[in-house]
Amino acid sequence: MRISELAATTGVPVHTLKYYLREGLLMPGEATSRTRAEYTAEHVDRVRLVRALVEHGGVGIAGVRAILAALDSPPPSRHELLGVAHGVLPGAPGGPDAAGDRDVDPAVVAFVERLDWGVGDCSPAVRGLAAAVTRARSAGLPLPDADLEGYARAMRSVAQVDLEVAGRARSPEEAMRTVVLGTVLVDPVLLALRRLAQEAESAARG
Amino acid sequence: MRISELAATTGVPVHTLKYYLREGLLMPGEATSRTRAEYTAEHVDRVRLVRALVEHGGVGIAGVRAILAALDSPPPSRHELLGVAHGVLPGAPGGPDAAGDRDVDPAVVAFVERLDWGVGDCSPAVRGLAAAVTRARSAGLPLPDADLEGYARAMRSVAQVDLEVAGRARSPEEAMRTVVLGTVLVDPVLLALRRLAQEAESAARG
Repeated sequence: MRISELAATTGVPVHTLKYYLREGLLMPGEATSRTRAEYTAEHVDRVRLVRALVEHGGVGIAGVRAILAALDSPPPSRHELLGVAHGVLPGAPGGPDAAGDRDVDPAVVAFVERLDWGVGDCSPAVRGLAAAVTRARSAGLPLPDADLEGYARAMRSVAQVDLEVAGRARSPEEAMRTVVLGTVLVDPVLLALRRLAQEAESAARG
Repeated sequence: MRISELAATTGVPVHTLKYYLREGLLMPGEATSRTRAEYTAEHVDRVRLVRALVEHGGVGIAGVRAILAALDSPPPSRHELLGVAHGVLPGAPGGPDAAGDRDVDPAVVAFVERLDWGVGDCSPAVRGLAAAVTRARSAGLPLPDADLEGYARAMRSVAQVDLEVAGRARSPEEAMRTVVLGTVLVDPVLLALRRLAQEAESAARG
């Protein structure tokens, strides 16, 4: 298909597609003349992925580039793949806007140890959790450990679904794609489900 | 305390405090002379709340004003209170950046009906969920109903903790504060816990 058809199929304007091409976020089409190139279903998939990351995932151009590089050469084991995905995702612990080198609250480290999930306290996910908990508590939300434990148990169930989804992937490429999209695009789904569940739970309690 | 002490206690610079005062986000202190005013512990709480909403909750000035107005005159029933909180929160279904008048995907409405949570399909939470699910699916994540159901069950457990927390409040004011802070500040905690749980679950599966 021509670039105008690629635009029509994906709903992304031609000038944005040209921007993706210039930035290396979209692989060039096959040149059929000096001014024309042919695009394929692979380009459609790539455009949809880039658009989802940029528009709905809040990922910057550098982040998209890192995700695409990881997708092109996925690490061999599923567990390493998760680490790579977490490292490049924005908002994710260890991501560009994470707590960085700030000290991790020892109370949160102790909480994670009591969970007994076998996650080391140097894990970026622990730093991310500590940053979020510290912010909530310093803003006046008590968030006692008992509540946090209830939330942790629920999110462990979420992670079980996540890992089943990733386990269904037929290749490391597909697994990487699933983990990245599943993290960026399922986060808003979970938060919307939380609000829906609050309404349901509130109505049930009268 | 003087404004400089209020700044030192909260970590918010004096010029930002003056901005909050001008915008009506912080109630004036008690004037002790033509150029001086006294601030109290109530001001400290208010500054921390405003800062949390603006900096970590992604709430705009208009949103903060709406939240503060709702905090000052909370609705009588807990269930209505939840509706008000959801209405003013950014990112929340029905909030300023929600799906608006776009058509809700009937597949998502059917999914919510099968959940049998007793939530009507005109609820803003259903619109918010439909928007998030549609975005994920159109970006190439299959997200079958079986996965979505697993996520929904987990988030219902989250909502149970949320409602227990709100139920512990001793006044409608405190309940409103808990719901607003609990929504804005616990969202990032849940997402950080999701990543931590993914690591734990991935390590456990080897």
